[in-house]
Amino acid sequence: MSSSADQYDEPLFYQVMQYARTADRDVVDMVSGNPDWEPPRALRAGLTTYADADVDEFQYPPSEGLTRLRESICEQQSIDISRVLITHGAAEANYLAMATALESYSGQEFVVVDPVYPYYPGKATMLGGTVTRVPVRKDGHLDVGAMQEAITNDTVAVICNTPNNPTGAVYRQSSLQSLAEFASTVDAALIVDEVYARFDFTGQFKTALTLAADNVIVTTAFSKSMAITGFRIGYAVFPSHLVDQAATRHMLVMVSASRPAQAAVAAALKQTGSNYYKETRAMLRHRVQSFIEGLETAGASYIRPEGAFYVLARFDGFSGTLRNVKRLIDEAGVAGMPGAAFGSSYDEWMRFSLCTDRTTTAGDRLAAFF
Amino acid sequence: MSSSADQYDEPLFYQVMQYARTADRDVVDMVSGNPDWEPPRALRAGLTTYADADVDEFQYPPSEGLTRLRESICEQQSIDISRVLITHGAAEANYLAMATALESYSGQEFVVVDPVYPYYPGKATMLGGTVTRVPVRKDGHLDVGAMQEAITNDTVAVICNTPNNPTGAVYRQSSLQSLAEFASTVDAALIVDEVYARFDFTGQFKTALTLAADNVIVTTAFSKSMAITGFRIGYAVFPSHLVDQAATRHMLVMVSASRPAQAAVAAALKQTGSNYYKETRAMLRHRVQSFIEGLETAGASYIRPEGAFYVLARFDGFSGTLRNVKRLIDEAGVAGMPGAAFGSSYDEWMRFSLCTDRTTTAGDRLAAFF
Repeated sequence: MSSSADQYDEPLFYQVMQYARTADRDVVDMVSGNPDWEPPRALRAGLTTYADADVDEFQYPPSEGLTRLRESICEQQSIDISRVLITHGAAEANYLAMATALESYSGQEFVVVDPVYPYYPGKATMLGGTVTRVPVRKDGHLDVGAMQEAITNDTVAVICNTPNNPTGAVYRQSSLQSLAEFASTVDAALIVDEVYARFDFTGQFKTALTLAADNVIVTTAFSKSMAITGFRIGYAVFPSHLVDQAATRHMLVMVSASRPAQAAVAAALKQTGSNYYKETRAMLRHRVQSFIEGLETAGASYIRPEGAFYVLARFDGFSGTLRNVKRLIDEAGVAGMPGAAFGSSYDEWMRFSLCTDRTTTAGDRLAAFF
Repeated sequence: MSSSADQYDEPLFYQVMQYARTADRDVVDMVSGNPDWEPPRALRAGLTTYADADVDEFQYPPSEGLTRLRESICEQQSIDISRVLITHGAAEANYLAMATALESYSGQEFVVVDPVYPYYPGKATMLGGTVTRVPVRKDGHLDVGAMQEAITNDTVAVICNTPNNPTGAVYRQSSLQSLAEFASTVDAALIVDEVYARFDFTGQFKTALTLAADNVIVTTAFSKSMAITGFRIGYAVFPSHLVDQAATRHMLVMVSASRPAQAAVAAALKQTGSNYYKETRAMLRHRVQSFIEGLETAGASYIRPEGAFYVLARFDGFSGTLRNVKRLIDEAGVAGMPGAAFGSSYDEWMRFSLCTDRTTTAGDRLAAFF
């Protein structure tokens, strides 16, 4: 057994959040990606209804997930129900995708972008795989040429997250199609994590389920889109030839996703119209704008997000180290994340989450500080 | 990566349940271990209250679990809170225990009893380990001598489940103490799954947390004790030197257990007195007795369970094959499980679950059939 989860460092998230929480002043928390807005109304109602259900509804659901929840997903995504597994959030979906790739494709190297959400390298190491990081372009988009160069016979999967955390880039369908085809030539999978799909400001996002390829695994969750990161409900869509393998691992590790949470999400998914997501996007657009105005006054460089809910910013002569992040907490009253938490190519930068209604205050404080 | 979950066969459970469900007659379902009794009242109330909570309570809880839930557990079990991880049911608890053993002890062989709950060998294979089965004694108890003989330098962990599914044996504390000590001499762990701890009819059960050893991992869940197998809330208690390793894997695969279910269980654990469990045991004792009367009339051999909620029975000249199980469904209207689902040493036997209020009917039908 070559697993070695101990090579995984606890994310800087926790250190920063802990520091901000114990600061001796008021701090605008722009560290965590925990939504601060309301879930769909039908979600609360669905949970209340479930609490009164007959006791047989408190027992094991089908391992692959509640049928009505899978059906709603398939209706929205136009895919065959047999390909969908309801998972314990995107965390399990990505774990299943990566473990299944290691079992079913050749090689053991995961190719990821830099900067990257740190759980992918953490999972890769835990599963006994290796990690190769490929810097993105200056605008946060995929450098497809550099990624193709990085893909070798030892590559087992390429992992992309779009809309992206932390850059906010919404990847082009043509880039993903190229990567899927290129991965295919070395017997590797393309894993696309679409957990921020509902937070696309460009109107251009298209799910990777529409790619013309049979080596694409799509992972996602309702954690962000329904403001329920603690519920732990997501799903993975596998190519038909990989479903049984993934379903077996899912059954052995989980049996099934938690049923109260599945029941609540099923109710919400059925009854929530596109307006709910539209209103959340409008609110986030407003937060982006108000925060960016402060950044401009502060003379910062920044990437305007095309999707998700984070802003990467860089301050001249004030790099994105943990030390400087702590200074901003103490002296400006704004808590962000060090860019180094996501890799080396953006370590001059800081990431600011928009999960707060005090983005104007935060922008003003940064403007005053710099 | 040596994982190969594809070597794991889907349990016979599913085949039998499917067959019973589509039978052309009324069938008493004694296949599944899904409780058919009510959860604690405070559990439903806890879930209803949670549905109205502020949105920040819908977000990620601490990865190791809600503090108030861990505190209640520690109060009951008299252990240090730092050793407790709230898991996604016993399934994740056992997965974490086995994976952590593989990472932290030497060897790759899991020693289990025969008959055995089939998920342990399934998980072992998935994790790249091997499995050695040691037949239990005729009364379902551990054959400690035979187990010690089976333990080698390649052994990474011994796995015991007490009260036991399927034999109903409640293992002696002295047997477990011997196994823990013996495992220690070959740098192996003892994993004790106590998911049926609340279903001890002998009054002799003691948690393995009281063993004098630092290589014992205890796993359990509220799935059976609170009649909520679908909620997926359990916990694992690790020796202090293994907690960080296990917590990292838990964070990478799960982030945390589902929060609505944790909140409901926390409320139920705080407010439910011992009477709830006592009443459930009394009801199950009654079911054992009524079913066994039928078995006696049928001339069957059986093991009277000391704990859990299953009865192993053997009918002369009618071995516990899948074919005979199907005959009983069609001709007697009683669905049990083939003993072969649990290994080879009890393949003459069938297991009957007591998760039905029609145990008298089932006993009568078996008596009439044989």
